[in-house]
Amino acid sequence: MAQPLRFIPLGGLGEIGRNMNIFEYGKNILIVDVGVMFPENDMLGIDLVIPNFEYLRDKKDWVRGIVITHGHEDHTGALPFLLKELGLNVPIYSTKLVLALIERKLKERLGKKAQPDLREVALSGDVRIGPFTVHTVPLSHSIPDSMALVIDTPVGRLVHSGDFKIDYTPGAGEGPSLARLAALSAKGVLALFSDSTGAERAGFTPSEKTIEPTFDRIMREAPGRVIVASFASQLNRIQQIIDISHRHGRKVAIAGRSMEQNFETARKLGYLKVPKGAHIRLNTAKKLPPRQVTLLITGSQGQPEAALARIAMGRHRDIVLNDTDTVVISAHPIPGNEEEVGRMINQLIERGAEVLYPPIAHVHVSGHASQEEMKLLLTLVNPKFFIPIHGERRHLHLHAKLAEGMGLKRKNIFLLEDGDIFEIRPNGCKVVAHAPGDYVFVDGLGVGDVGPSVLRERDALAQDGFVVAVIPVRKRTREMAGEVLIDARGVIYKEQADATLNQAKKALTKALKNGKRSRGALENIARETLRRYFYQSTRRRPVIVPLVMEVD
Amino acid sequence: MAQPLRFIPLGGLGEIGRNMNIFEYGKNILIVDVGVMFPENDMLGIDLVIPNFEYLRDKKDWVRGIVITHGHEDHTGALPFLLKELGLNVPIYSTKLVLALIERKLKERLGKKAQPDLREVALSGDVRIGPFTVHTVPLSHSIPDSMALVIDTPVGRLVHSGDFKIDYTPGAGEGPSLARLAALSAKGVLALFSDSTGAERAGFTPSEKTIEPTFDRIMREAPGRVIVASFASQLNRIQQIIDISHRHGRKVAIAGRSMEQNFETARKLGYLKVPKGAHIRLNTAKKLPPRQVTLLITGSQGQPEAALARIAMGRHRDIVLNDTDTVVISAHPIPGNEEEVGRMINQLIERGAEVLYPPIAHVHVSGHASQEEMKLLLTLVNPKFFIPIHGERRHLHLHAKLAEGMGLKRKNIFLLEDGDIFEIRPNGCKVVAHAPGDYVFVDGLGVGDVGPSVLRERDALAQDGFVVAVIPVRKRTREMAGEVLIDARGVIYKEQADATLNQAKKALTKALKNGKRSRGALENIARETLRRYFYQSTRRRPVIVPLVMEVD
Repeated sequence: MAQPLRFIPLGGLGEIGRNMNIFEYGKNILIVDVGVMFPENDMLGIDLVIPNFEYLRDKKDWVRGIVITHGHEDHTGALPFLLKELGLNVPIYSTKLVLALIERKLKERLGKKAQPDLREVALSGDVRIGPFTVHTVPLSHSIPDSMALVIDTPVGRLVHSGDFKIDYTPGAGEGPSLARLAALSAKGVLALFSDSTGAERAGFTPSEKTIEPTFDRIMREAPGRVIVASFASQLNRIQQIIDISHRHGRKVAIAGRSMEQNFETARKLGYLKVPKGAHIRLNTAKKLPPRQVTLLITGSQGQPEAALARIAMGRHRDIVLNDTDTVVISAHPIPGNEEEVGRMINQLIERGAEVLYPPIAHVHVSGHASQEEMKLLLTLVNPKFFIPIHGERRHLHLHAKLAEGMGLKRKNIFLLEDGDIFEIRPNGCKVVAHAPGDYVFVDGLGVGDVGPSVLRERDALAQDGFVVAVIPVRKRTREMAGEVLIDARGVIYKEQADATLNQAKKALTKALKNGKRSRGALENIARETLRRYFYQSTRRRPVIVPLVMEVD
Repeated sequence: MAQPLRFIPLGGLGEIGRNMNIFEYGKNILIVDVGVMFPENDMLGIDLVIPNFEYLRDKKDWVRGIVITHGHEDHTGALPFLLKELGLNVPIYSTKLVLALIERKLKERLGKKAQPDLREVALSGDVRIGPFTVHTVPLSHSIPDSMALVIDTPVGRLVHSGDFKIDYTPGAGEGPSLARLAALSAKGVLALFSDSTGAERAGFTPSEKTIEPTFDRIMREAPGRVIVASFASQLNRIQQIIDISHRHGRKVAIAGRSMEQNFETARKLGYLKVPKGAHIRLNTAKKLPPRQVTLLITGSQGQPEAALARIAMGRHRDIVLNDTDTVVISAHPIPGNEEEVGRMINQLIERGAEVLYPPIAHVHVSGHASQEEMKLLLTLVNPKFFIPIHGERRHLHLHAKLAEGMGLKRKNIFLLEDGDIFEIRPNGCKVVAHAPGDYVFVDGLGVGDVGPSVLRERDALAQDGFVVAVIPVRKRTREMAGEVLIDARGVIYKEQADATLNQAKKALTKALKNGKRSRGALENIARETLRRYFYQSTRRRPVIVPLVMEVD
């Protein structure tokens, strides 16, 4: 029997972000995307979430290459961590823009001297990688150069959608090449892997160009500066804002490091077309009449360190809001950010600015396909097998149901999970084993040294703080060597804390009276006594940390 | 000069929830609503947020009565805390349903023997309270008996909208009495205070009845049980679900304490009409064919202790999900709950159930007015002065702008803040002073003993945990009396923690060598040494707690 193709998703099948897919044939591995996920609200203190690379650990030599479908962090952000494992000589394939964005990030994380093996492919290109031939096909998304991949493998042709929408007027970059996709699919596609993120939305996602009339009116009528916050990677949006500002005699200045960097990179490579004199420095903008200024800034998600939140809190060095300013939040809050974004809008309004945001103004469109676009892709590709990817469980299920509604057989649709080892043969597929597919947390310098148990400790500390009790005992006699010491953080106000802690100390001292006890016994007494005391007096459950201090 | 009327909002003007308004004339106070707010995601460990009652502390004798506009927690939930301050003999006025709901809650918090002075008013009633005459006017909301108040005062007639929408087919209870409102407003209204919650939505909020066709199809076609999660207070929704279930031969069982209690209260008082045999016990439901069962449960917001989340996690004693079940989440996530609700939906789907929720199914409508209903109210009441209430800052601002767009003069529209003391005279209004309007946190038994500084401590602990270092010194000589002791929680995995803490101990021991130092100096050395060590080795910033232990 011929060898099967193996598909191993290591991220993105159960979460938004952290997209990473492995295609394996014999001892040859092709990796598509290596993304990060941004931590959810209950992942306390975590900086990033990356895929678990365990599956690759003893197969480093098999990796023939990495293809990146587009330049967003949720598809590229874990590359530095993967390259630390695999070494820098694994070739990374993508378009000029994507490689430029990747190169900058890799050098930030791995050092300026790091020389990754970056190989440019055309947006409609063909490249041989081990036993695979990858044909790139431009689709649309919220960044130029987003591609679907048609992958020829020894078992048949596969299509991987990347992140996509079908936008015939994308504002920047090429439109979707449906003709190329149809032509490549005409000979028969064994399996389609397709983006499920927008599966809850009926109809078509509006085109990037549909927000133009709103911005046109804003730029024309705003009595002072127009301050637009958007994702730094949303180059299509940035291009539109530059064009519309220019039309209305506004010059664009940029604030926020990632926005500045992406702007420079995209402009240098020709992805952003900036009319002469249309872009000015922030310092120059200060000297112009406000009606001639547009500011393009970061922070549309309410991130406390980004430009917009600092402006909202009155903490931005260069941008002080006034009541002739118009602020446009050209983004939707990512689920989990609603509260922070809402609070930031309130603060901006308090400072007197006019604030426009969805849903009160049509200033943003999604970058992901809605149901009708998913159907269009399914129709063009017409695969035998269908595997929904990129999305939480509910998105994957809705996408599967949608495909079934179009006539695909239920037995040919596969709902996989991160870590599944999925074998594809021309006449059938199945999950044959499982690799670790769990979240790996990055916290500061640590990768994987914080797990669920540490998060549970942090959560307990977040709820009610902690109380520490130091019990001094003589090493030899095991008698008390002095007074018990009690301190606390996050339990109660400082003023009231003293009285409460004194009471707690009395209770503990009493409980420890009479007796020479082992370390374990002392710790138990302290834990129980203090737990009971704090619950009864406050109905709170601080973390109790008993420390036995042995002195000579 | 005649005395002014004073309006003091103590909640709801800058947040959703915690609604409380004071009307004061001479030494007479009328309070409208006394609500709680549910804590935001960054209010770590907080149970409830209530208004600051400081303003009333030396005016207890002035309070002539409290009127409650409807039976939701964000308008009634702080009553037990207020009555603890004011005493139980303050009369509370509302309709039969609202009083029944309040009475139960008061007895839960204040003891079964508590006898609050509850006074029933008709839904279209008139009651004299000190120098005020309050005319109640039914409007619609997501609970029956929601009222606007027309308040006659010595300075003129005021209208307070309560929470409202204009729903001509509300599913249960009376529809809005626009005729009564118009008649009462005809003689001239000095000031309107109106609900701003829905100010971001254009058009009209759909009627409660518009979800009937969706539920009709679900109840008819679902192959097994239909499990509907909704707010326990949403009696209109509950009535519809009972009626539609009955029509399709399904009997309704209830799970979740608050749902059971509200159902019983509303049924007893005649607010819920339950056909004979339509309601069964949960145990009886288990014996019926699944197609004959509807379960009405709590937990639509993903609350971890409520029925639906327990079902989703497989932890509900009585309800085990299977793949013939249909789960309907008949609610929108309240801002801040999106992530938890989304995760719960994923879990429910993983257990094989069909899950329907907004936006993929029309199974919920808002209880608050959209822009066109706000305009309708403004037109009917036609006030001289307008004060938007109930909403975050952006909602209040949008509501103000909407009123201005209808021709109200800007100088007659007032954007107030919680705690403002606002004087109303027939020919003008102004803020004359400020009372404390801040959040008061309830945490366990503590009311107000947790404030921003404690929350900052909890947040720091949540981010990176803490490290405690005990430094034993001789009282007399101030020399080290033994080894330094270091422990940590929430910083790092247990396995790696030992090595890291050992290193930290070495670093600290070295830093403390040579020298007899004061407590403060020792603490500083420990704080600096450990902060530097942990930042350099992990890039984390745990809270450092140095404890100097003096022994004989």
